[in-house]
Amino acid sequence: VRIEDIPSSQPQKGQVKLKVSVCGICGSDIHEYQAGPVLIPRSPHPLTGRGTGPVVLGHEFSGKVIEGNGKWKEGDRVTASALILCGECPYCKKGQYNMCLKLGSVGFASDGAFAEYVVVPEYSLHSLPDSVSDDMGAFVEPLAVAVRAIKRSRMEIGHSVCVIGAGPLGLLVLQVALSAGATQVFVLDPIEKRREVARNLGATAVFDPHEDGVGRKIAELTNGLRVDCAFECVGSQEAFDIAVKVTARRGVICMVGVSLHPIQVPFYRLWGHEKEITTITGYVDEFPSAISLLESGRVDVNPLITGRISLDDLVEKGFEELINHPDKHVKILVYPGDKK
Amino acid sequence: VRIEDIPSSQPQKGQVKLKVSVCGICGSDIHEYQAGPVLIPRSPHPLTGRGTGPVVLGHEFSGKVIEGNGKWKEGDRVTASALILCGECPYCKKGQYNMCLKLGSVGFASDGAFAEYVVVPEYSLHSLPDSVSDDMGAFVEPLAVAVRAIKRSRMEIGHSVCVIGAGPLGLLVLQVALSAGATQVFVLDPIEKRREVARNLGATAVFDPHEDGVGRKIAELTNGLRVDCAFECVGSQEAFDIAVKVTARRGVICMVGVSLHPIQVPFYRLWGHEKEITTITGYVDEFPSAISLLESGRVDVNPLITGRISLDDLVEKGFEELINHPDKHVKILVYPGDKK
Repeated sequence: VRIEDIPSSQPQKGQVKLKVSVCGICGSDIHEYQAGPVLIPRSPHPLTGRGTGPVVLGHEFSGKVIEGNGKWKEGDRVTASALILCGECPYCKKGQYNMCLKLGSVGFASDGAFAEYVVVPEYSLHSLPDSVSDDMGAFVEPLAVAVRAIKRSRMEIGHSVCVIGAGPLGLLVLQVALSAGATQVFVLDPIEKRREVARNLGATAVFDPHEDGVGRKIAELTNGLRVDCAFECVGSQEAFDIAVKVTARRGVICMVGVSLHPIQVPFYRLWGHEKEITTITGYVDEFPSAISLLESGRVDVNPLITGRISLDDLVEKGFEELINHPDKHVKILVYPGDKK
Repeated sequence: VRIEDIPSSQPQKGQVKLKVSVCGICGSDIHEYQAGPVLIPRSPHPLTGRGTGPVVLGHEFSGKVIEGNGKWKEGDRVTASALILCGECPYCKKGQYNMCLKLGSVGFASDGAFAEYVVVPEYSLHSLPDSVSDDMGAFVEPLAVAVRAIKRSRMEIGHSVCVIGAGPLGLLVLQVALSAGATQVFVLDPIEKRREVARNLGATAVFDPHEDGVGRKIAELTNGLRVDCAFECVGSQEAFDIAVKVTARRGVICMVGVSLHPIQVPFYRLWGHEKEITTITGYVDEFPSAISLLESGRVDVNPLITGRISLDDLVEKGFEELINHPDKHVKILVYPGDKK
């Protein structure tokens, strides 16, 4: 990952150019930094043509429209979905946009928002209300993922929940679960700071997954039944095994964390309990819900912000800091203009 | 497995004694024969006390009531769910009977129907209409499993389906999928005889899973989309891998077959497609649907019957025959009285 001066892209028909206010660092950006290309295409993307040269990362951002068109005015404060769609395949026609046969993502298959300017498809824009700050706007994208995770898990009001991994997504899933009526939300993370944030955000109880008898304790706190929905927000065999252990009969395990290796699934332990495993690909139409959750204050992202850096410091004080000091950080925000 | 003369059980309060007409051999009976105890409890079952001595196998049966009570008359033709329930736990109270915290099964946790007589809980009985023969009645239990598999997969009218493994359950799932409005049902089995039965029962196309390009052929037959629901009716890594390969985006893999080993799941291939994996535990309230499917002729079990034997021949012409000649058999029916 290099920080370079490159010519700013110009919007084509159906695109809008934004001045980036702030852009959060996502785990998938770090995947690209450490093991890429993962989401960056390895051959020219069918919709953007990108994938053989360098690409600008960054897809969790807020910004301002700098060139108005019929629908958007200069200065409009916005955020944008990262989905790049064909709009024509059977899935797009059904409205299952995240299943688009040519799906690409801003910041992987097109230049993203770790830059002063970003050009995005007009269909991806969402207006930010005054009460949603630029910083909060940079959380709409991951919050939309958390909202979708709750939907995919089929969590209902009155359910009990366990979130395994209190990174940015886990802490958002915790809050969305509470706002959706979960009666108990247990959060597991080996890092004390993250457990503390989870506790402050309303977790029923927090646990270090390595302490003895976590499964038993969660069973005790749920009248022996365990939880209806477990969110695996780590992406590891260990986290998955915990998810199996803490879910109730008829429970759903929602795989939010991304593991690049196969996971061993002991179906002989799932069968008798009719457990289900579901997966999630970003979001479809969850941006309005995410913005509404921020606007109403039901999701608080401030405790998740552990760093604010300028774009020049992206590698050293961003990626490297998150990799080397996970105990200190949840989300680092990057400012391409003046650091706030 | 021994064939012995033992005293016939006498019904307790809430139980009914039946004269067994016919009892089918299930894959789980063979599991017990080859690798048991699997479903037979290893310690006294909390509801039946059985599990330390021998138990009579057999749970797919039809019979006649031999001692009437308030609700059932002598001579009533019936079949019975195998579920033995506590009726008091949170799951029973919710009507999720197959999740009962003390769940047991007739033929594992209590004496089953490879016998002249069987005693079952009264709540498990279902009346057989005249048009459902004794032989058909012995298929109600596995057919209820197939109906539940369809429900758990969330298959809807218009969906495309792939059944992996054309054993008794696979061939029932095929028929239930068609009766539920599946537009295409592909069936995979390495055994020619089973593929032929599947073809005759209405499969859209049948394949040997070992032939080249099965995934590609199914993709071609589904406009490149692959199937909405895949039923893994084998219980093996190979069958699971095929299920992943043939399912469409947003597809559901329903695990019907039982593997006693963990299965490696490449979630990195499922995530981008929001695939789900669901499991199934017998049935809850699917007996009336199963009986209705047989009564209306929408499910035909005759092509599945490949042997009729007397109880004395259960091991040699039943279990051993199914193990050694899977190419010749689907379902063998056992007659404790005169062979029909």
